[in-house]
Amino acid sequence: MPREIDVPQLVAQMRDGSRRALARLLTCVENGHPKLEEIGAAIAPHTGEAQIIGLTGPPGVGKSTSTNALVEAYRKDGKTVAVLAVDPSSPFSGGALLGDRIRMVGHSGDEGVFVRSMATRGHLGGLAAAAPAALRVLDAAGFDIVLVETVGVGQSEVHIAGLADTTIVLLAPGAGDSIQAAKAGVLEVGDLFVVNKADRDGAPATVRDLRHMISLGMSGEPGEWRPEVVSTVAEKAQGVEDVVAAVEAHRAWMLEHDELSARRRRRAAGEIEELAVRRLRERWERPNAEVKLDDLAEAVARGVLDPYAAAQAVAG
Amino acid sequence: MPREIDVPQLVAQMRDGSRRALARLLTCVENGHPKLEEIGAAIAPHTGEAQIIGLTGPPGVGKSTSTNALVEAYRKDGKTVAVLAVDPSSPFSGGALLGDRIRMVGHSGDEGVFVRSMATRGHLGGLAAAAPAALRVLDAAGFDIVLVETVGVGQSEVHIAGLADTTIVLLAPGAGDSIQAAKAGVLEVGDLFVVNKADRDGAPATVRDLRHMISLGMSGEPGEWRPEVVSTVAEKAQGVEDVVAAVEAHRAWMLEHDELSARRRRRAAGEIEELAVRRLRERWERPNAEVKLDDLAEAVARGVLDPYAAAQAVAG
Repeated sequence: MPREIDVPQLVAQMRDGSRRALARLLTCVENGHPKLEEIGAAIAPHTGEAQIIGLTGPPGVGKSTSTNALVEAYRKDGKTVAVLAVDPSSPFSGGALLGDRIRMVGHSGDEGVFVRSMATRGHLGGLAAAAPAALRVLDAAGFDIVLVETVGVGQSEVHIAGLADTTIVLLAPGAGDSIQAAKAGVLEVGDLFVVNKADRDGAPATVRDLRHMISLGMSGEPGEWRPEVVSTVAEKAQGVEDVVAAVEAHRAWMLEHDELSARRRRRAAGEIEELAVRRLRERWERPNAEVKLDDLAEAVARGVLDPYAAAQAVAG
Repeated sequence: MPREIDVPQLVAQMRDGSRRALARLLTCVENGHPKLEEIGAAIAPHTGEAQIIGLTGPPGVGKSTSTNALVEAYRKDGKTVAVLAVDPSSPFSGGALLGDRIRMVGHSGDEGVFVRSMATRGHLGGLAAAAPAALRVLDAAGFDIVLVETVGVGQSEVHIAGLADTTIVLLAPGAGDSIQAAKAGVLEVGDLFVVNKADRDGAPATVRDLRHMISLGMSGEPGEWRPEVVSTVAEKAQGVEDVVAAVEAHRAWMLEHDELSARRRRRAAGEIEELAVRRLRERWERPNAEVKLDDLAEAVARGVLDPYAAAQAVAG
């Protein structure tokens, strides 16, 4: 039995700055609390103010350190920051590969910073459903900046890009990394590329390679955004202001080209679609469903029905 | 305009062994030909006979070489083999990373072997939709064995596992690879693990690590399948008979435990669901749709509607 909650009270407390209320609402959203829809309705009017920044890249490029450095830079500007660290580790590994559920980013005691880790346990479906809802909660809580950090394994960074206003792709020096990144599709989703550990050999070459690959990927139409490539040494906080400036440049470009509202519409459309599909799935799986997916699947597996006809039977 | 096709004639020709008819049907299925549903209905009665084997693993472990060796082994047993090589390379890289669309696996001239590459261009949605349909065509064409080969980048191998009766995960010696594999989730999907390049240093350790990780992942219930770990040197065709034997052992276990039909029902259910969702999406996007996803998304983005209410409006 999920714990009974008073949604209007929790939302009011969260809006008043209660981190405890915020944490409880996030837990409800992650676990699919029965009052999920009431929470959604209660926070909706308070959303749309936060600037959502995605941070992704392959393991080992220094994502946590970079997140840390960015949080510090935004705090210096007087902005409040929430961090959502999405951990797509597999159920097989038990989530242990990526560390603790709640990480302290070196900002404990700072009321203007809130950090939350979310384990998706290998189910991208889980991330797809829970991450947008968690972002809406953090947005409604009134943070100026919401950073979503994820490990770039395969398709997860594509999802993250769909959630953020601006997506930062982190890479480390080395041609191998760039090619891996190209394969995994991260190059398509970056609004901004950061070559971290830029004090290492090969950093200028990686920057050059990236710029070249970005050029190849551009359509050449006027007004197109050209992803910037910035070098950092996050450990020493070097270059972090350049990242913040590049994020702002991207935001200014989006506002100028009506792209920010377009992205947010696309994000909302994706979220609605995801929830609509979940509703349908629940309906198909009901024991008293008129058309049962199981029966149709059985018929298709036996070759007496084709999948297109079956899809028509369930979706009309 | 897609070329006009005579579906019953093409299917009959394909069933008679015409590779040209088979290739045309595969193209129709990949490109979403308007007669897709007619093709689906025409081939349905001929499906369910082929043994579908998935082969996945990180780049560089020798997937093509292993596929080659497996094809040869099955041909020696007098079985016909189709290979579907799924290439999840990004649009950014233009598909050039993984080679030609039609690869000759060293079996050109052998009528019992058919090879088809499928570029998904970074859209996993594309793979999800087209690969099952392509497998159904190859199944209906009458091949004894259908091998689906994919590069393990993130979530794609999870999809492949859903498509195959038996999924083989290929790994190369080296602890780093094993951990990467665990992160990417391939360990959960393998029915059978093959440590290729087993003449290299570290191969016994990798086999041992894998066996240990497999043990950790098992529930301990009676009758549970314990994934085998087999060593090969595919280049020299060493150990390939062991792979074939392990595939057969898995098939025997599935038949004994009613798991083969269960898997095929799940596969059919997934395919129906995918197609049903596509139908819904098309309906939402119609210009004269009663409830337009765009309008709802706009309202959600502006904070005047919450996504749960919007989902209810589209899905009921």
